[in-house]
Amino acid sequence: MHYLFHQGNLHIQETRPYQAGKPIEEVERELGELGNTAFKIIKLASNENPLGASPHAMAAAIKAINQVHMYPDASYHRLCDTIAKYNNVDIKNITVGNGSENCLEVLAKAFLNEKSNAIVDQYCFATIRILIKGYNATEITIPSNNYRHDVVATISKINQNTKMIFVVNPNNPTGTYISHNELTYLLDNVPPHIIVVIDEAYHEYVEKPDYPKSVQLLDKYPNLVIARTFSKVFGLAGLRLGYLMSNPAISDLLHRSRLPFNVNTCAVEAGIAALNDYEFLAQTKNTNRSGMQQLSNGFDNLGIEYIPSVANFITINTKQDATLVYNKLLQQGVIVRPLVPYNLPQFLRITIGTYEQNERLLSII
Amino acid sequence: MHYLFHQGNLHIQETRPYQAGKPIEEVERELGELGNTAFKIIKLASNENPLGASPHAMAAAIKAINQVHMYPDASYHRLCDTIAKYNNVDIKNITVGNGSENCLEVLAKAFLNEKSNAIVDQYCFATIRILIKGYNATEITIPSNNYRHDVVATISKINQNTKMIFVVNPNNPTGTYISHNELTYLLDNVPPHIIVVIDEAYHEYVEKPDYPKSVQLLDKYPNLVIARTFSKVFGLAGLRLGYLMSNPAISDLLHRSRLPFNVNTCAVEAGIAALNDYEFLAQTKNTNRSGMQQLSNGFDNLGIEYIPSVANFITINTKQDATLVYNKLLQQGVIVRPLVPYNLPQFLRITIGTYEQNERLLSII
Repeated sequence: MHYLFHQGNLHIQETRPYQAGKPIEEVERELGELGNTAFKIIKLASNENPLGASPHAMAAAIKAINQVHMYPDASYHRLCDTIAKYNNVDIKNITVGNGSENCLEVLAKAFLNEKSNAIVDQYCFATIRILIKGYNATEITIPSNNYRHDVVATISKINQNTKMIFVVNPNNPTGTYISHNELTYLLDNVPPHIIVVIDEAYHEYVEKPDYPKSVQLLDKYPNLVIARTFSKVFGLAGLRLGYLMSNPAISDLLHRSRLPFNVNTCAVEAGIAALNDYEFLAQTKNTNRSGMQQLSNGFDNLGIEYIPSVANFITINTKQDATLVYNKLLQQGVIVRPLVPYNLPQFLRITIGTYEQNERLLSII
Repeated sequence: MHYLFHQGNLHIQETRPYQAGKPIEEVERELGELGNTAFKIIKLASNENPLGASPHAMAAAIKAINQVHMYPDASYHRLCDTIAKYNNVDIKNITVGNGSENCLEVLAKAFLNEKSNAIVDQYCFATIRILIKGYNATEITIPSNNYRHDVVATISKINQNTKMIFVVNPNNPTGTYISHNELTYLLDNVPPHIIVVIDEAYHEYVEKPDYPKSVQLLDKYPNLVIARTFSKVFGLAGLRLGYLMSNPAISDLLHRSRLPFNVNTCAVEAGIAALNDYEFLAQTKNTNRSGMQQLSNGFDNLGIEYIPSVANFITINTKQDATLVYNKLLQQGVIVRPLVPYNLPQFLRITIGTYEQNERLLSII
């Protein structure tokens, strides 16, 4: 059996699977076994939308169930068209995927190989590092500058085998961002054959005037690729939908890299409806804005240090083995995210919840 | 732009995307423009279930919409457990994916590389050939023996770089199958470091006593992997759900090869419900059995030659450029599948529909 296992690609054998947030049903089971069932469990571990999903998107997904015996349209024409209009780009700029993780995989598959390397920040979203390994490329890791992606250091690390640069903006799990000027500085100094991927999963939450208007850069920089997701502000994490915006030549390549039916019918219809639900988008942003204030104030009052964040989560420094705090919260039915996989053993990432959820967290921590 | 395009991996550039069945909405649009709107369009092009989806599965998917703002459980524990029990294997044998196409990709990613080759029949399901190319391996194609996968020829083509053998059983688009004895002959003569993948997408339709009981072979042959789908007999093509059964050592490797959230929440819940809906399964099989008889008799009466099939489709030989027949059917609102991508330009693959759909097809062809 061991012999057999080693017939797989070595880089896959060496891949460590992603460690996801603990699901509510798992915590319910564990606490139930201990007799602790007095409270409702809340999950602030996966940066999900505390308001749920857009009601219009949910209604569209339910309606789509009638057609689930049929394959989706492999070109995803209506969905791509809606995404293009939402971003004011051409449909030829759009590629869709089964969550942005699948989008990022389609990119890695298209560009990476055993002779290439990709540059990431040391606290880059773990899935990207898993994909670099999964496509047998070498990862070049640059040290964070005060938990921020350092574009100058990135440029200095480029070598002849560099194929891709990934910038998660804002970054998960640190919540920091690079500015429009930093992004254009990066793009101006990167050779045009290197693909620069900006993962903007948390894009809609950011309210800083100097946050990049990345879409406006697509025409000027044909090596720029922007990744977005419906899992966060649109509340559709369970349906799995993400997309890429890129130069049409890259889109054509990605069309060859992705599989024909990578997005499910419910995600297609929910995604189209969600992009038109401006009310839900506004509610979500309002909830996040006030929740961010509430948690920041709370942490300030408690003397808890945190990394200033522009996303829908805050990462705190517990100044001790964070597992202790994590377990204490877990026993009270509050699930947060330890950052051991990021070599941040004293840190916890906390998703901004509803007012009540945030209060409960602050009262326990 | 051209320069940029060529920075992608050459094997991805050279990949020709899968050609899917024409969607009903596309034909509606085209016929509408011609003023032909007198009839309901029927699609017999993608081997979808003419009865729709299991009502229990649809109800479960609708219920799951309430949770779509949360990520699925990345271990897919409940789903894997249900699949394991349905097949009478251990949960450690199961890997799930976003349709069986994603399952096959997770396998290709784990085992193939630029130094390896994979053996397929010349009429093998196109997605498998696309994946071999997509993971930069060499395809070794064996000639069909009267449209059947030739296991003796397969063994004779193995060389030191062979990593995988794919057998689609029954094969799509030919509808033929290899027997239990042929499969065990293959497994007995393949070196144990070569992975033998049996794609059983149409498994439930087959009613031949000598069709392989492949699951019973998993213990004896640790290099055997079985792929299944919920897109056919369970009618869930639009939700995207498939699974693999393999030795636990391979499952562990596949867990490193797949992404954490590759299956959506609606597919999880619908899949669990579908496996328990024996009534829908029986109805589907009955409809297919009588539809197969109806179409075979119809083709016999019309003097149309076809490849005997054990699946939910029949491939006919039009003895002319099949595009002519395809277009004639299309103008009458019946969508079937031309097999030009399989180098079978005189053949059409026709999904078995309801009694009325089959009658309509026979009346036009």
